[in-house]
Amino acid sequence: MLLGEHSVLYSQPAVACAVDRYMRVQVEPLASRDVIVESALGPYCSHLDSLQDSVPHRFLVEILRRWQSTLACGLKISITSEFSHTVGLGSSAAVTVALVAALRAVCGLPLDQQEILRSSVEVVRAVQGRGSGTDLAASVFGGVIAFDADADALQVQRLSSELPIDLYYAGYKTPTTDVLARVAEERVQVPGVVDTLYRLMGDVSREAITAIKSDDLSQFGRCMNVYQGLMDALNVNDATLSAIVYGLRALPGVMGAKISGSGLGDCVCALGDTGAGLSGFERIPVSVSPVGVSVDVFPR
Amino acid sequence: MLLGEHSVLYSQPAVACAVDRYMRVQVEPLASRDVIVESALGPYCSHLDSLQDSVPHRFLVEILRRWQSTLACGLKISITSEFSHTVGLGSSAAVTVALVAALRAVCGLPLDQQEILRSSVEVVRAVQGRGSGTDLAASVFGGVIAFDADADALQVQRLSSELPIDLYYAGYKTPTTDVLARVAEERVQVPGVVDTLYRLMGDVSREAITAIKSDDLSQFGRCMNVYQGLMDALNVNDATLSAIVYGLRALPGVMGAKISGSGLGDCVCALGDTGAGLSGFERIPVSVSPVGVSVDVFPR
Repeated sequence: MLLGEHSVLYSQPAVACAVDRYMRVQVEPLASRDVIVESALGPYCSHLDSLQDSVPHRFLVEILRRWQSTLACGLKISITSEFSHTVGLGSSAAVTVALVAALRAVCGLPLDQQEILRSSVEVVRAVQGRGSGTDLAASVFGGVIAFDADADALQVQRLSSELPIDLYYAGYKTPTTDVLARVAEERVQVPGVVDTLYRLMGDVSREAITAIKSDDLSQFGRCMNVYQGLMDALNVNDATLSAIVYGLRALPGVMGAKISGSGLGDCVCALGDTGAGLSGFERIPVSVSPVGVSVDVFPR
Repeated sequence: MLLGEHSVLYSQPAVACAVDRYMRVQVEPLASRDVIVESALGPYCSHLDSLQDSVPHRFLVEILRRWQSTLACGLKISITSEFSHTVGLGSSAAVTVALVAALRAVCGLPLDQQEILRSSVEVVRAVQGRGSGTDLAASVFGGVIAFDADADALQVQRLSSELPIDLYYAGYKTPTTDVLARVAEERVQVPGVVDTLYRLMGDVSREAITAIKSDDLSQFGRCMNVYQGLMDALNVNDATLSAIVYGLRALPGVMGAKISGSGLGDCVCALGDTGAGLSGFERIPVSVSPVGVSVDVFPR
């Protein structure tokens, strides 16, 4: 997530990108209707027609439930990830998109990006109650995208295939649902102000979308900095994130820096070249992935 | 200044208080029309009818110019301050208000708070081009005030006689005019956004005024925290100020913390009890002064 955190849940646009750390989901048909899953989150075994609940595999189980009547046979599913789910790189979004795309391929359906996004959003919202779908849209389409969750049809606009970014991890993370609960509580206590804040965040995101489209990275960086202040006003910034943000902005090649994600931990994203980096904090080396979800069929 | 920095220059209300560090201006009539000034900023000697310019004494010179035809004689003016002008406690506002009040007394005019404020604002705007007058209003009226510079008649509303505050100095200061120039430059580059930001700052200030009136310090603290984020969005926060802000907010007795003044240095204000304080930063012990400008006449 590059811009639009929180406000995307209130009808404002968001900006996100796919990164070149990939989640791979390999699906093999089985003779039985068993489901056998191998994943870094642990194994999962069940029967396609009576799927057991599993918290770590909740997105996967929700998807399989939706496909159980369509699938002709059981499956062996192997999930490998190039990044840890503890770092907020949207691992659940990536695995959801990849599995939906793979199951479509197994059933002989075409790789339809809009349809994969639509059904992935349904899955995520069914599992966690809410979710803008921004991470899903970036996983599906790749590159840098603008996302508008408000429309009944989720609107995705491809903005660019590249953007110089760097990520730094705070060393801890607060679950997004907890952050949202805290924001909701404070919203009640300062009525009126937070709604205007969301609208202002939306204004900044729209300005940022224009900036990326016209390849004006300095302006995009300025928008990131303004948005960071609005995140601070929303009370989802903290001492560590702020130290990373100001540390990054002090580097000569950096045009902007802000929290990436809902806040109270997780990552800070810098726009530009952080050179030798920011000492004392963990850098997560990523680049924008120009491609989104893809399917390979074996044997070809 | 407690709340309303920057936005007060764009027709939004501000909240400020007088602190119990006093500026004393003693004025003695002289037989001649000489003007002799003793002050921590250095001595100043001139003739009432041909006043020399002096940058450190520019507020004083501007006031004397406006009074030269009214004053019957020259003056010896002694200025003593309980605080340094390098810390942003509004020393130029205090000396302006005190001298205007003293000259009115010398000329036999009553202590008229609104009139002292009006002429002090004229002086400050003549010297530095702009200035909301918030610091002046706090100096004149004392206590905690809401100030609206927009009206032709400067509106001051007394909110309270006390408020638990603590000040911490960043160790450096950027002149307000430089901060305003930087903000104006960025305003041009992110059009639209900054205007909405000022309106939102105004919403927060109005909410804060309601909170103080109903003695709801927690809510006032929340407003301070939100306003701090908006100052960050305006790009007048920095790494040091942010470290002080988050350090103060982590103290158990603190209900809110924000930059006090235009930013990029100077002080951070905490609402509540900072206990043993925040190590590593200079605390400036102050309390709210319930009284504003006053005049003693010797011999009585």
